[in-house]
Amino acid sequence: MSPPATGLFPPILCTVDVVLLTLRERALCVGLLRRDAAPFIGVPALPGGYVHAQEDADALATAARVLDTKLGLEAPYLEQVATFSGPARDPRGWSVSIAYAALVPEARLDSTAKGFSLVPVAQLPQLPFDHGSIVEVAVRRVRNKSVYSSLPVQFCGERFTLPELQSVYESVLGESLNKVSFRRKMDELNMLEAVEGELLRGNAHRPAQLYRLRPEYRRQLAWSERGIGVG
Amino acid sequence: MSPPATGLFPPILCTVDVVLLTLRERALCVGLLRRDAAPFIGVPALPGGYVHAQEDADALATAARVLDTKLGLEAPYLEQVATFSGPARDPRGWSVSIAYAALVPEARLDSTAKGFSLVPVAQLPQLPFDHGSIVEVAVRRVRNKSVYSSLPVQFCGERFTLPELQSVYESVLGESLNKVSFRRKMDELNMLEAVEGELLRGNAHRPAQLYRLRPEYRRQLAWSERGIGVG
Repeated sequence: MSPPATGLFPPILCTVDVVLLTLRERALCVGLLRRDAAPFIGVPALPGGYVHAQEDADALATAARVLDTKLGLEAPYLEQVATFSGPARDPRGWSVSIAYAALVPEARLDSTAKGFSLVPVAQLPQLPFDHGSIVEVAVRRVRNKSVYSSLPVQFCGERFTLPELQSVYESVLGESLNKVSFRRKMDELNMLEAVEGELLRGNAHRPAQLYRLRPEYRRQLAWSERGIGVG
Repeated sequence: MSPPATGLFPPILCTVDVVLLTLRERALCVGLLRRDAAPFIGVPALPGGYVHAQEDADALATAARVLDTKLGLEAPYLEQVATFSGPARDPRGWSVSIAYAALVPEARLDSTAKGFSLVPVAQLPQLPFDHGSIVEVAVRRVRNKSVYSSLPVQFCGERFTLPELQSVYESVLGESLNKVSFRRKMDELNMLEAVEGELLRGNAHRPAQLYRLRPEYRRQLAWSERGIGVG
């Protein structure tokens, strides 16, 4: 059966945009890619693209394909943020953009990718389409979720010390955390496992234990009933 | 400029589905509408429809139009839940459904609307498309948000007493709440205002004060840092 929508109504443009987030020097940054096609050719924007009905299993697969194809970034942590739509957001016509947030450690980003730049969220330039609003909604969502969940761990490498993780939470939440209560909350979340026999040997300090996420929390979040950043 | 997507790729079907939620006899219920067109003609499903590029300002407007046209329901509280997509969820082709939750007091529903039924979420029949998953995600979202926000007030009429509101929260959260701490949390949220000179006169009891949402919280939520249902 041929799709009735296309006969009856003007087609809707179906796209995906990715808010690629990382921490650089303790600042939350978003990845922008210079556009290589009209509209807004040459302007830095969120990496995105059309849904390809022939190859994408769903919109999440579109987001993963866009990051892989355009930035060589394979299988980052991705989550759907919201869908933006309307006649005015894209000059090509009535469009839908399903927006995803991708959270990655900075070390996984190839900063030499053509046209790529990392910009602190606090110093975002004016972006084309409604990409400014999309970033705003995604950042708010990531910060709100981070108060209650394991989400910020996605900014760490595979292995990290507890002081490193605390610093990541502090950067995302924008507040200093008490060391003792932070460790108690990490214990309650029960999402970390010590990497056996692996200690990070600092210079003057005693060696620090390395941790990683338990396998069950690498693709889904651990949740805390009480805020991690609240007392 | 004509949309390049339609030339290059098979078009994507763009639809909206609405999870219409209400409380009936303290049970969370979802509104189903018997489908009047193929596929699944005659089968109860979520009210939904195609995005109409000519008339809809965005997908939220599509959801509002669907409820108004199919159920005579004007301007209920609506919020975007998530977008579902893929080649298999609709037999007509690769499709996107932007799902919304609508929360309404039962009294606003016209239960005589043709083909309409209210079904307790706990006794949901098998639904066509991926509507079962959509309901599940929407209900989980509404329950999670209700722990921390004014969301359940949308199930009340315009005016309500505090015992009525507590009963609504208890039904949505699925737990009994302590009266004193519930009232303290409502005070902290500072989202209600007493309706002056309006008291509900019960039979044996002293008259109860009627409340309503402050105007600024009728379309956006008030948030509590600590859970309303937790201690």
